[in-house]
Amino acid sequence: MPPPGVIAFNSGYLHSSLQPEQVLGAAVARAARRPGTWERPPLEGLTPLRAWFAREAGGGLTPAHVLITSGGQAALTTVLRALTPPGSPVLVESPTYPGALSVARAAGLRPVPVPMDDDGVRLDLLEDAFTATGARVVVHISSLTKPTSPTLRVGALIAQGPVMERLRAIQVVDNFFVPRLLQEAALDLLGAPAWPRHLRTLAASLRDRRDAMLAALQRDLPHLASAVRAPAGGYYLWLRLPGGTDETALVGACLRSGVAISPGRPYFASEAMAPHIRLSYSDIAGTDEITDGIRRIAAACAETGVRDGA
Amino acid sequence: MPPPGVIAFNSGYLHSSLQPEQVLGAAVARAARRPGTWERPPLEGLTPLRAWFAREAGGGLTPAHVLITSGGQAALTTVLRALTPPGSPVLVESPTYPGALSVARAAGLRPVPVPMDDDGVRLDLLEDAFTATGARVVVHISSLTKPTSPTLRVGALIAQGPVMERLRAIQVVDNFFVPRLLQEAALDLLGAPAWPRHLRTLAASLRDRRDAMLAALQRDLPHLASAVRAPAGGYYLWLRLPGGTDETALVGACLRSGVAISPGRPYFASEAMAPHIRLSYSDIAGTDEITDGIRRIAAACAETGVRDGA
Repeated sequence: MPPPGVIAFNSGYLHSSLQPEQVLGAAVARAARRPGTWERPPLEGLTPLRAWFAREAGGGLTPAHVLITSGGQAALTTVLRALTPPGSPVLVESPTYPGALSVARAAGLRPVPVPMDDDGVRLDLLEDAFTATGARVVVHISSLTKPTSPTLRVGALIAQGPVMERLRAIQVVDNFFVPRLLQEAALDLLGAPAWPRHLRTLAASLRDRRDAMLAALQRDLPHLASAVRAPAGGYYLWLRLPGGTDETALVGACLRSGVAISPGRPYFASEAMAPHIRLSYSDIAGTDEITDGIRRIAAACAETGVRDGA
Repeated sequence: MPPPGVIAFNSGYLHSSLQPEQVLGAAVARAARRPGTWERPPLEGLTPLRAWFAREAGGGLTPAHVLITSGGQAALTTVLRALTPPGSPVLVESPTYPGALSVARAAGLRPVPVPMDDDGVRLDLLEDAFTATGARVVVHISSLTKPTSPTLRVGALIAQGPVMERLRAIQVVDNFFVPRLLQEAALDLLGAPAWPRHLRTLAASLRDRRDAMLAALQRDLPHLASAVRAPAGGYYLWLRLPGGTDETALVGACLRSGVAISPGRPYFASEAMAPHIRLSYSDIAGTDEITDGIRRIAAACAETGVRDGA
């Protein structure tokens, strides 16, 4: 978390004004009064919540294919511990979530990057990577934390057959159940008429913030902005910097100007890469703050010798 | 969790009738309405909650010595990852929590048992173990889960100096904050006049259940009962079995008779040991169920050839 007053282009969460606080509060209050809320839940999670994740994933999946987890990071840890002996290759999106890389490295695994384009992982290169590394499993991870609040650490692991058996076994060893109160509140929230309304409002607000950031980049850093891909959804965009840029120096100069940004390096597994910064627009109060923040970044670029030109 | 109808002498939690459900519900409802509850908390935890754990620990500790964790298991994982390179010895109570042993082994560590007596770890043997292994750190772990509900997964790590710096660093990498709603609810609960009342009622109820279990053992398994130590506090007692007893066979026979018990083996690190079973009295509706359960265990002992005699 950046200090108060700093523009948080480095946050992966939603600004409080974008969180469904009232719906969440009501869901928690109802869940707290429900009989059984203070009991242990089944280790796999509440069946109706598993059913919801199965329906969302589609493809004829059932609750039996779903394990409820404490958000995405816990799901990753369970998967990597359950399925991969030390030294194994793990295919990761590139760029990817640094938490995935640190969990993988802590488990003694070898992250192998698979490049992405505008539509996600490049399927042609994914096949090559499977063949080259002998990797065999793809497991789907889903989380409610991102579209709601950091308090709702509820996610799901979706898998089939023997893979699911091993995930369940390690979940039992870890005794890693998710507090039932949070599961009951999630279930209440997902069934509320306000939930689809929240998702629509959120998507519109994120689009406004993305467009404001793109417009500000085009005005203040037009050459660098020309290479930015406009994500259709999502919380952030990537800015590719000229070869030889010192990411750390730029990040420091931005912070001194009151803007927190993420250097690109931790998001890449191991491959040679151009310098990048990641600019998130999800944890920002409004579009004026975004315009202001990009102006400060442009000044920090000038100060540290990052040229906006060929 | 045992199937419904089975007497749960193997549970480490409180029976729902012993949980402070109403106080918890009120605490959560108040916390859900508090401004900021849906925000990320500071990574180290809420300062007033850290202050509470520091006061409880005594010895002039301050909030700076405390990190809030998601209960005891998460605290253990953080400690073992932060402080101990693979292959290091870790001193463990013997018997100890099997979760501690599995976390230690998963981290590539070497658990070294330190025997206990009625007052806890034997300090004379603890000093020997420190000298023999070169172990250097003792970190204090505290949890609210046990005296409240499995939903309140809130605990604390207490440490000083460079050890605290390393714990904090790994906590930041893991981004392992505890949902703020649960921290706010814990803080509300600990400040409520009902909290000390709950602790007094709970202690009295646990003493009743312990005494009922001891009385039933003295009636139905008098010889084995004579070696049982009556714990002053706690949730369970250990029953030492005659040499050569097959723990697994006895556990199976008890389960077929409707009583779930814990075999001793997983609680011991590595040392030679007599067979044991662990009998918990915390997750039981009342004393009649305890008397009934011990009668069934005595029958299962007879059935599997476990003799109650010299």
